[in-house]
Order: sequence, then structure tokens, then C-alpha cells
Amino acid sequence: MAAADADGYTKVKWNGWGAKNRKMEVDAEDPSLVRHTSGKIIRGILPFINTELGDPSQAMSKLDNTPSITIEEAIQKLQAPIVNPPFLAQMKEDLKEDQVKSDGESRVTHIFGKNYRDLWRMRRGMINRAPDVVLLPESHDDVVKIVNAAQKHNVVLIPFGGGTNVTGCVEPNPFETRRMIASVDIRRMSKMISIDKQSRTAVFQVGVMGPDLDEQLGRHGFMFGHDPDSYIYSCLGGWIGARSSGAYSNKYGDIEDMVLAVKLVTPGRGVIETPVAPRQCGMDLKHIIIGSEGAIGIVTEATIKIEPLPAVRRYEGWLFPSFEAGFAAFYKLTNAGISPCCLRLYDDDETRMSFALKTDTPFVQTVLSKGIKQFLSTVKGFDMNKVCLCIIGFEGTQTVVDFQRAQTKGIFCRHNAFNVGTGAGDNWQEKKYDLPYFRDFALSHKLWADVFETTTVYSEALSLWKGVKDAVRQVWKAEGKKGWIGCHTAHQYKTGCCLYFTFAGQQFDDNDMATLFAIKRAATEVMIKCKGNLTHHHGIGYEHVPWMPRYYQQGALDWMLRMKADLDPQDICNPGKLLPPARKKGESDAALEERRAKVMMFDKMGLPSAKL
Amino acid sequence: MAAADADGYTKVKWNGWGAKNRKMEVDAEDPSLVRHTSGKIIRGILPFINTELGDPSQAMSKLDNTPSITIEEAIQKLQAPIVNPPFLAQMKEDLKEDQVKSDGESRVTHIFGKNYRDLWRMRRGMINRAPDVVLLPESHDDVVKIVNAAQKHNVVLIPFGGGTNVTGCVEPNPFETRRMIASVDIRRMSKMISIDKQSRTAVFQVGVMGPDLDEQLGRHGFMFGHDPDSYIYSCLGGWIGARSSGAYSNKYGDIEDMVLAVKLVTPGRGVIETPVAPRQCGMDLKHIIIGSEGAIGIVTEATIKIEPLPAVRRYEGWLFPSFEAGFAAFYKLTNAGISPCCLRLYDDDETRMSFALKTDTPFVQTVLSKGIKQFLSTVKGFDMNKVCLCIIGFEGTQTVVDFQRAQTKGIFCRHNAFNVGTGAGDNWQEKKYDLPYFRDFALSHKLWADVFETTTVYSEALSLWKGVKDAVRQVWKAEGKKGWIGCHTAHQYKTGCCLYFTFAGQQFDDNDMATLFAIKRAATEVMIKCKGNLTHHHGIGYEHVPWMPRYYQQGALDWMLRMKADLDPQDICNPGKLLPPARKKGESDAALEERRAKVMMFDKMGLPSAKL
Repeated sequence: MAAADADGYTKVKWNGWGAKNRKMEVDAEDPSLVRHTSGKIIRGILPFINTELGDPSQAMSKLDNTPSITIEEAIQKLQAPIVNPPFLAQMKEDLKEDQVKSDGESRVTHIFGKNYRDLWRMRRGMINRAPDVVLLPESHDDVVKIVNAAQKHNVVLIPFGGGTNVTGCVEPNPFETRRMIASVDIRRMSKMISIDKQSRTAVFQVGVMGPDLDEQLGRHGFMFGHDPDSYIYSCLGGWIGARSSGAYSNKYGDIEDMVLAVKLVTPGRGVIETPVAPRQCGMDLKHIIIGSEGAIGIVTEATIKIEPLPAVRRYEGWLFPSFEAGFAAFYKLTNAGISPCCLRLYDDDETRMSFALKTDTPFVQTVLSKGIKQFLSTVKGFDMNKVCLCIIGFEGTQTVVDFQRAQTKGIFCRHNAFNVGTGAGDNWQEKKYDLPYFRDFALSHKLWADVFETTTVYSEALSLWKGVKDAVRQVWKAEGKKGWIGCHTAHQYKTGCCLYFTFAGQQFDDNDMATLFAIKRAATEVMIKCKGNLTHHHGIGYEHVPWMPRYYQQGALDWMLRMKADLDPQDICNPGKLLPPARKKGESDAALEERRAKVMMFDKMGLPSAKL
Repeated sequence: MAAADADGYTKVKWNGWGAKNRKMEVDAEDPSLVRHTSGKIIRGILPFINTELGDPSQAMSKLDNTPSITIEEAIQKLQAPIVNPPFLAQMKEDLKEDQVKSDGESRVTHIFGKNYRDLWRMRRGMINRAPDVVLLPESHDDVVKIVNAAQKHNVVLIPFGGGTNVTGCVEPNPFETRRMIASVDIRRMSKMISIDKQSRTAVFQVGVMGPDLDEQLGRHGFMFGHDPDSYIYSCLGGWIGARSSGAYSNKYGDIEDMVLAVKLVTPGRGVIETPVAPRQCGMDLKHIIIGSEGAIGIVTEATIKIEPLPAVRRYEGWLFPSFEAGFAAFYKLTNAGISPCCLRLYDDDETRMSFALKTDTPFVQTVLSKGIKQFLSTVKGFDMNKVCLCIIGFEGTQTVVDFQRAQTKGIFCRHNAFNVGTGAGDNWQEKKYDLPYFRDFALSHKLWADVFETTTVYSEALSLWKGVKDAVRQVWKAEGKKGWIGCHTAHQYKTGCCLYFTFAGQQFDDNDMATLFAIKRAATEVMIKCKGNLTHHHGIGYEHVPWMPRYYQQGALDWMLRMKADLDPQDICNPGKLLPPARKKGESDAALEERRAKVMMFDKMGLPSAKL
């Protein structure tokens, strides 16, 4: 087997989510059924689509009409690479032959992340700017060589982990029309360097993917405890770059709590290693590197906190009569000092989707049974259109789990909740990584789906929830379109929580992105008004850059821009992401704003009429 | 009452700890007894001193021999202030008359922090460099005016909160022989600006002292939950500058967890406000400002997380047969996911001191009773010379407290611990702020006492504990002196904990500081070898600066130095603290090291022979 075959990016879909052999599709024999990636039947999804996204007969009639181009066609669409010969020569000298790739497949698979816009363009062959070369470092030292050569020869570097980013963090900047762009794929850097079992720390190369990381730790009886939706296909370095957070963050922490120290290679200032300590003294530099999206350098190694495998894992479902009731119960629970590992509340809209996406399992039959419905509506007084699903997970020792469950039960029951047992929890566990496959399914059936999320303080959370949904629906209304938007909360903090929105609509024409932009604009306005931040855990890519000058007070934004200029004086590190262009000497506010508007990728990528 | 009388610094001792009317002293009638600040009798302290610090008769004979000079004498010793007339004129224009003070008392009370070296010099009138003026801002805008004027006129600014710092953070740099130095006393900035009870956040001016902060929050049913030993006399801004941590950090967090956002006024780059969010996105700037010790600007306001007043507060004592046994029990408890609010383990030496410092209360009589001792040694098999006291505190709802207590009991009992009840806990609560009074008592009786602390990973903690104590004792042995050193753990993290050392000896002569330096050097060598950091929560002042180039990898240190140069290009912000001098253009490693050694305050302050 050639080394190329072993590289992660050759094993996953170039134009969709996940492994090449996994997909969700309409049943070959019965077109009213959809088959889950596992082969199980999902009965509810087509009726859900028909009801929520358009007139059923019309929606049905549009299925199977938006196939993807082939990878060969995509490769044909690539522009000839921009080559910086001395850089390439240096790389060929510094690295092994199979670490430097400029074949079509390598380039095509390193253009995009995996959000709706990314895949929509990929499937349609809307390629503006592909990386000119893909570099595959195997060690910190390899990265040092790459960064040094790139700095010397003014070549752009984009770190590329699992490529699952959904906020435009890994895409080449189309305004880079002269400089060579190298995508630095870190997936070969997947080794555990050391482990300290007593202190529960380990040092890893950051290209290690979720399952591999846990497999390496599992041999020693440990795990990491980080479980984002992208877990299977994303890596430690990506989590660090995006300031990621997993479904179990309430117990194991967000990525900044789980990473004790990092090693960063910068073009302007060499290697920066932050110290390892259970708690830092002085200035804590790691917090500038975590969340920096490759814009100040490339992270190569990290010291992480590791967790013992929990003795007990229990996930269960509850139904609340309304989102507000569930929200109040979560707030009470958190305030009482009870932090279950996982705590998710789906609003009425997302609860319906959640039910629709269920495969045929005993749980679904139970929840949807007439008997339960009747009990909830007559005995408990639920309005069945407002029912909200909650998934709660407990991990740890039996006694801790028992205690947390008892406390939860008390509080949830006082908020009129109804326990639907572990079936719902296990079902969530089984399906938690599946939403991207549903998005792929949607894309191939003249539909689309996307997500965004934020964090806000409790006093603003319900206003934000309502406000965002209203604003998004208003966009559809103004455009005469129909769409669906749902929301769930996850990641509970003492002062607030994350609100995660999923939304979907029908594909119409080449200008569909204009609708997406309008939706994102409208939603972000509400988020900012309601003290939400730009993202909770998806990272700051070009999807968020236009709002950076509004979200941050100018002094703070300018400080970040100066840090960037210091560490990356030629702007070779992932330009166009994280931060807007810096002010040029003597540039007026108006001129700066105009220039920023001109080169911001947000409203240009995927819109045929946009000026690039 | 004149406004000056209302200022905090006029109410506390200029040459010792705490309020002017509180002190620990030998009983007027029976010189074998010491009276606690509360007036209660402490019987154990003099015998403890005699046993641990020297031949009893000799030690006793030296009592009462090292009084302090008077404040009038101290004021006489002040050098004439260095005045920058345009700066002073600007300040007099920008601020009210009583906000600009250059009288002797104001200057004398803003020279030092409150460690042994500080008070030793203060009491002996060893004043090298006092601030030339004390400024008393009342608002963020006042601070902006001060910083702008200082930047314009090249005047040094040292933020001064409660003045309780013990690592040399508030002292004027003696190498500042030409520039005017202003101590910026923020204690008038003590207002709550807003509160969001639902989100449990509040915005405060950072000059607010601990009790005042909690009093203002208490009116709304909340508290902050931050309880450092300095609580009564220190303020929010000081806690932020020093990256402080309180006794209840296991439940309420370290200061960086409790502060959501800060507003910083910098000389070079204006105001930097970090965004308020339950969790940050992108680069998290607040972590550079927290712990920066005024070296990049002055923090004026902060958004903090507030906590509901707990329904139950229960503190109790346990005895472990050895430090190792207690350490293992704490480790197990933390790993099991049980985080009592407060968890402290005193080693054998510190346990003896702890008992010696007890006032006459039922607890002491119980613990020291022959019956208990006999039970522990015969039935439990304790070596009574190795017994270690543990203080554990639980706060929260009754059910959470009950659960944590039951879990703790199970684990502690498996480690052969013995519960000595709430008497010990209540006694600790009552006395937790008292150690500095004991230090003052020591200073006035030809003795001295000091502290330092660190954080390390679990696998190194016991080596560090033993290693530091051995190294310190080695210094005394080499110098033919006798001393006492004890240690306790506090602040339990998943990967490690804080180790806090207290040590004491006899005063000998004018060169006593040389012994202190030797002790600190020896201890820090061990700490660094055992992966300890420079401080857990006391902040990085000139006491730690010499080790910064060793603790931080060069890339990280240089980055911090560049941040400093960017925000404070003239080095007017607290020079000599936090960071060593930056490299001059073209300066060699050797020349830099030589220059740094020359101007580092650590080994010069308080040693008569040191070159200043």
C-alpha cells in the first residue's frame, strides 16, 4: 500500500461527510423510506421534510435532483497551481517525497470544510481557489521546517486537521491570487509522546483524531472525554484551533479546560511553548493560542488532561411541556450545583426533527405510542405541539451517578417533566454523530441544512432563542420561501449556556447563498443584541469575521491584530480567518471599513455574482 | 471628617498587618501567654516557638527586642520626592485636590506589600524608594486621565489595591532614580455598577475590598465566594492582578473562573475591554490581563460571576496518620468527582503549628486530650509525631453537602483518618485570617516568618514537598541556624494541587535577608525541578522575576515582553515586576543576563550590602 493511501483524507468523502462507505439514502425498493447509515429504516424523515419545508407533493417531486459532480470533474476545475519554486524545492529537501503533494485529489480534498455552503459549492464544482500544495508533516520538527520556509518565501499556510470545520476556517482565501498556498495536513502527527498516569496528563501530537486519541489512552485505562459532533473525523489540533467543546463538557470541560499546554510554531517569532501546570501563574498564554484558528501559527503538540474510564455511563430522555419549562429546570439544576456530564434540551421544533430522524427502535414506538401521548396530554396537561425532548447523561462512579440522577429527578419532576427512560438516551448516543449525514442527504435532494451556535447569559437566553428564530423566519417570509429552524441548549455554565440552532430549506437556484447570508446576518444581529457571542465551539472562520469589529470593542480587536502582526508579520497564517484585515498606516475608519468589506470572504463565497 | 480620613490606607497598619486596633501580643500580666487578636489566650505558641526555633531559654530571652520605628521616624527617612511638574499640574487639573497626595503618611503607606521582608524593612526604616505621589482615582475615567498623563510625561504608575501583596508587586523600583513614581491607590473605586441576578453576574469597580464586595452582593442575596487569607484587606483589582485564589476555590473557582471580563487602561494602546460571555470565543484576552500585576496597564472594572448564599456551610476537621495518607485520600476524592468547597491538608510540622496557634476552645482541649491521643496511637496506630490535620468545608444545598460528606467519610476512613468534628472546622474559619498577625508578633520578638507556594502535578507533589523542606533545612544547617518549615495542600485540581509552605526562624543581624534569599533560591530550584510553577496565587512580583527566564521557555517569555512593550512602550507600568527587562537591540545573551542580574530587585531589597 502506498503511503498516500494511508492518509486520512483519502478515506473520507471529498464532497460530503464521513467515511466513503457511510451514507443515508432513500431505500432502493420503497422510496417513502430512508435508510440510516446503519441500514436501519427512518420512517419519519420524508414526512417531516414534506411538512416542514414545503408542500409535500412538491417537495417529494424535487428529490434526487441535485447530484454532485464527480471528483474527476472537480479536479478538472482546479486552476493551475501557483508555485513558489524555491519554497517547493526547500520542502522537497526538508521532507520526504510523499509529504509534499500537489496531485488533484490532494488539492481538491483540502479546499473546504464541511458546512452547507462548503459542500454545496464542492458538489457543484464552484472552486475559487484551491491550495497549491498539500504538506503532510509527521513531527513538530517538520512543522518548524515548513513554517520557516514559508516565512522565508512568503507562502501562505493553512493548517488542516480533520477538515470538518463548519465556519470557513480551512478554505484558501480567494484574494490570495499571487502567493502560493500550502494546506498543512497534520493528520500524520498522531502519536502519544508521553503519559503521566498519576497526574492524569498526556502529551500528544495534535493531528490525532478523536477515536485514535481515545484508543491510545484506552490502552492505559483512560480517555479524553471530548465529544464534539465531529469526534470521529476531527482531531486535537482542530479542537484547539476552534476552541471546541464536546457534548460532555459539563463534566470534562471545554477544550481550554482539557488542554494544559500547547506548542505553537510561529513564522515571525519561532516556537512558543506554554508551561504545563494544573493552574497557570502570571499571564496565561495558552488562551490566546487556543481558538486562534491557525492565524498566528501552527500548534504541533499539546499536554492534555486525561480522565479515567467512568465506571457508569447512563443516558436518558425526558420530555418537558415547553422549552421554557426545560430551560428553567436546567437553570435550577445548575444552580443547585448538579452538573450531569451531558445536558441537552431540544425546543419544540428540534424535538419534532429529533423524533423524525429516529430509526425504528423500541424507544420511538414507545414515545410515539398513542397511550403515552394521551397520558401526557390528558394527565400531565402537555400541549403535544410544544413538547421538548431533553437528553441527560451521567458518568462517573455509581454513587455520583445515583446522586445526580436523584437530584435531577426531583428538580425535573417539579418542572412537570416526564422520564422516557434510557431508550431515548441510548438512541441519542447511537445517533449523535449522524446529523451531517442527514445534511448530505438533504443536499442531494434539493434541500439544504446548516447550523450556528452562540453562548449568552441566562437573562438573555430566551430572548435570543425566540429572537433568532423569528428573525430567520422573517427572512424566509420576505423571500417567499419556507424553512425550518430548531434550537437546542447544551453546555451549561453558572452564568449562561450555549444555544445551538439548526435550520433547513429548499434549494432554489444559483443564488441560494444570498438567502443564507440574509439568514446569518439577521440571526447574528439578534445574537449580538442579546449579548450572545459569535460562536460557542465552531471556531471563528470567515463566517464570523465581518462581526469581529462589532463584537469586540476596538481596543481588544486592535490588540489581537497586533498580536497577529507580531507573530505573523507577512500574514501567511490562514489569512482571511479569525481577524479582519488590519488598519494600514494612516488609513481612515471609512477606508478601512471599505477595504475590509471588499476582501471579506463571508458574503462572496458561493454567490456567483460576488466580486472576487 | 476630611476625605483623607476615609481612605482605606489610613485605617490599616503602616508597619504590620490589618486594622490598627488588631494585634496579637504577650499577655500583660503573664508573659508565658499570648493573646489572640480577639483577646482569647493562646497557650501553645511560646512553647512551640521555643521548641521549634531555638533553645527555649535563649528564644525567650530575645522577646520584645525588635520594636518598629515610629511612622514619624519613617516619614523622616523619605527622600524628597522626584517631581514631574507638568504631570503633577495635569493631575491637579484632572482630579480633585484630595485625590492627589504627597504627604509623608500617604507616601510611607504605599511603599511596601506585607511580606516578611517588606515589614522587616518598614519596621527598621530601610526605605530605598517611596512613591513620589499617591493618586486616588474614583472612576474608570479618572484612571484614563492618570494613565494618559503618565504616558505623556513619562511617569511610572504602580497600581495599589489593599497593599497586602507578599511577592513584591507594589514596591517602587529603586532603579527608577529619575522618573516620578505614582502609586495609584484604587480603593475609592468600590462601587457596584450593575447586577444581573438571573445570570448571576455583576459589574464592579475593582478597588472594592472583600467584605465590602460581599456586603454589596449580600443585599441582593449573593456573594462572590473568593476567600484568600488577605480577604479583609485586599480588593478585587489586587486579586485580578495577582491571579488570586481563595480557600473555597474547589467550588467557586480561581479568580480567572470568577471574573468574566475586565476593562484595562493601557498607556500605549488605550482602553481594552474584553467581552462578557459565559464562555469566550476566539482568543481569550482576559487571561493575559489577569495575573499581569499592573505591568501592562491598570484594570478598572470587572464583570464577575456571583454565587447565591449557600443554604448550608459545614467545616470539619480530620486527622490523618501521615501527610502521604491524607494526600492519597485527597487524590482519591478528587478523582471520584467529589469537590468539597475547601480541602486543606497540613503536614506534620504545620499541624503542630496549627495546634500551637489555637486559642483556648473546647476543640483544642478535645484534640489534645490524653484520651484521644491514646485512642489514636493505640487503637488507630497513629505515630503522634506524624499526625496531619485536614480541614474540609462543604457549602451548598443540604443534599449536596450531605452527599459530599458521606462520600468523603467513606474515602477518608479507608485512609485511616479520624474525624475531629466541626470544632476544628469552625476554629479554622474563625482563625483563617490570623496568620499575618502571628507574623507581626514574630517580627516584634526577634523572630520572622514567611510563606511561598506553588502548583505542581500529582506525580511530583510529594517529591516537591519533601524536596523543598529538605532544601530549606539544608540552608539553615549550612548557616548554623535553626528554623521551622511546614506545608499544607489546598486548591485541588484534576491534575495536581497547590503546595503552600510557611517557614520561620530567628532574627540575627542586618544580613538576615541573605538567609531568606538562600532559602528562596534553594526552594525554587526544587520547585522547578519538580515541575512546580513560580506561584499558585500570590502573584509574580520581584520575588519571582529572576526565575521567569527559566520557568518560561524563551519564546513564551519573549512574547510576554513584546506584549508589554506594545501596551506600555515606555515601561511606565510597574517596572521591575512580572517580567525581567527586555533585550535591547543587538544585546547578546550574556550582556542581557548581566544587565538583568544588575537591576533585579530580588536579591537587593533589604540587604544593606546590595548595590542599588
